[in-house]
Amino acid sequence: MAETLIQIGIVGCADIARKVSRAINLAPNATICAVSSRSQEKAAAFAAANGLPLSAKVYGSYEAILEDPEVDAVYMPLPTSLHLKWAVLAAQNKKHLLLEKPVALDVAQFDRILEACESSGVQFMDNTMWVHNPRTAAMANFLNDTQRFGNLKSVRTCFTSAADSDYLSRNIRVKPDLDALGALGDHGWYCIRAILLAANYELPKRAVASYEPVVNKDGVILECGASLYWEDGKVATFHCSFLGNLTMDITAIGTRGTLHVHDFIIPYHEKESSFLAGTETTFDDLVTGWAKQPIKHTISTDLPQEALLVKEFARLVSEIKFKNSKPEKKWPTISRKTQLVLDAVKTSIQRGFETVHIHE
Amino acid sequence: MAETLIQIGIVGCADIARKVSRAINLAPNATICAVSSRSQEKAAAFAAANGLPLSAKVYGSYEAILEDPEVDAVYMPLPTSLHLKWAVLAAQNKKHLLLEKPVALDVAQFDRILEACESSGVQFMDNTMWVHNPRTAAMANFLNDTQRFGNLKSVRTCFTSAADSDYLSRNIRVKPDLDALGALGDHGWYCIRAILLAANYELPKRAVASYEPVVNKDGVILECGASLYWEDGKVATFHCSFLGNLTMDITAIGTRGTLHVHDFIIPYHEKESSFLAGTETTFDDLVTGWAKQPIKHTISTDLPQEALLVKEFARLVSEIKFKNSKPEKKWPTISRKTQLVLDAVKTSIQRGFETVHIHE
Repeated sequence: MAETLIQIGIVGCADIARKVSRAINLAPNATICAVSSRSQEKAAAFAAANGLPLSAKVYGSYEAILEDPEVDAVYMPLPTSLHLKWAVLAAQNKKHLLLEKPVALDVAQFDRILEACESSGVQFMDNTMWVHNPRTAAMANFLNDTQRFGNLKSVRTCFTSAADSDYLSRNIRVKPDLDALGALGDHGWYCIRAILLAANYELPKRAVASYEPVVNKDGVILECGASLYWEDGKVATFHCSFLGNLTMDITAIGTRGTLHVHDFIIPYHEKESSFLAGTETTFDDLVTGWAKQPIKHTISTDLPQEALLVKEFARLVSEIKFKNSKPEKKWPTISRKTQLVLDAVKTSIQRGFETVHIHE
Repeated sequence: MAETLIQIGIVGCADIARKVSRAINLAPNATICAVSSRSQEKAAAFAAANGLPLSAKVYGSYEAILEDPEVDAVYMPLPTSLHLKWAVLAAQNKKHLLLEKPVALDVAQFDRILEACESSGVQFMDNTMWVHNPRTAAMANFLNDTQRFGNLKSVRTCFTSAADSDYLSRNIRVKPDLDALGALGDHGWYCIRAILLAANYELPKRAVASYEPVVNKDGVILECGASLYWEDGKVATFHCSFLGNLTMDITAIGTRGTLHVHDFIIPYHEKESSFLAGTETTFDDLVTGWAKQPIKHTISTDLPQEALLVKEFARLVSEIKFKNSKPEKKWPTISRKTQLVLDAVKTSIQRGFETVHIHE
């Protein structure tokens, strides 16, 4: 079994890499074979602090880990502005790519990453963990069930978190040369993904940003929102912010059903999570209460969602490595749609809240 | 005690009057002394079917009940387009006025109703029941608590219900000559009221309607939404529709707290209802779950919210009738703010989704 484990190298020791290292350790079909940072010392300290296998190699440069022939795939939690350079280099070095979100500063950059992946025949997946939770599959089943949910009419999502002053002055996510997309790239990414999930990944046709986005002195978005419109009349809105108490809601309304969830990105509990689903909910005769209410659905998982993500990524890499399969297009396609909508919202903000049309 | 009960007359036998008749019967300080319809038979049938006191008089015209000197106050569930005529006449006849929502077709009409009430010295209250539930007071306490909630940043509300084809072809709420405001007047009213509650009744400065409102062949709104903006950066959105499964959510996000509720207008249960309140909710260290989650608050009430509304209305009428007090301005002020925002959204739709400035 050990020789069939997918050998993953970690490119960059960002805070989020702690969680993903644990996830790779938990995934049954992957292992960490190497870690790299811009300094050897930082990489060694990360390896020691995060329970990496003793066999894991420690590199003091990103180039070095990408040149290691034992590395099958890389997890890359670098700042967004560095994605183009390093993701393309990783793909050119035939490394399958698990890339942090947002995948790029814009879809043009992302397309260059995808082109590099395609021409090297490597798998691409972004690190949006919650879509790999079995709860998400159960939610999607509900949303796509014409009997229980009907047709989507409206979906509303939000993700806010209360950044402290240290974060707002120093974190990479508020720096124009690192994560220039700010709260839109970080929190908005999840909101948009949830909207796309509810729309069964049909792209909206138009995006209009809300007024009053908050930006910092460098022009990085700290808070914004938008409305999205489909041709058939479906509407969506989202709100994302570094300036509000931790909140992550979806309310999706169909012709026959409603879905509510309050912890869609990070479930309250790692191994058990819930959502509320109502079908033909209705009042009693005198409208003094509900004759039929939403029902709580609880889903258990042995592995946390981030380990399920790694397991799925490593499974696809195995199929390519050992069975000569082609890369799975589903994941890069979803990433690209998310980035397309994100770009449209950003453009709408830049153009004074004009309507922006979205084309594949 | 009996002689101090406020004597209420019901002007119109709409379906909602069944619920309000029960509420008046339940309220300890009010009684139904008369009912009227455009036909004597219909009024008599209503009285028999709804447990009205045997002493209640039955009138075959609205004029007759308004001229009855025993009637202290009227409950008026007439279609919105009839409010101006009959509410003004009621006030001119010195009847205190409990008026169905939306209170008028626009604020200009509503101001004429308020002028009539003021010049007659009668109490005005609209029949928005949920704000009288003790749960709403508990939610307002949370929302106004700078320690538990901080300052409001964003509030998102929706109210949708799935009207059947009979409703969509025949109900007064889709008829331009009866309830011309459609879903905006009926469902949107509640969404706007909840947003105002979260904003501690501070009026937004701007309203922008969402694209894609759905209207019927007569131009009556069946579905619409809007975004609202305050000068300090607070933002709100709402969505209201006759075309989606029954849903009524509030998500209010403050700098320190979050409120979630799924049944804000009609609680799931008449005598016990809940909301979720989170304060400084946060992830665990590795962001694999929440170290601090929202907490469920459950509030009991002996009387249903509509009976508490009647009790409050009758209490204010008693103060005026027996203690020579002045009418309470709080309730008409809140009604007027709700109508002002509603008008702005309607104007934005009419002007092709332009921004509409809101002035008191």
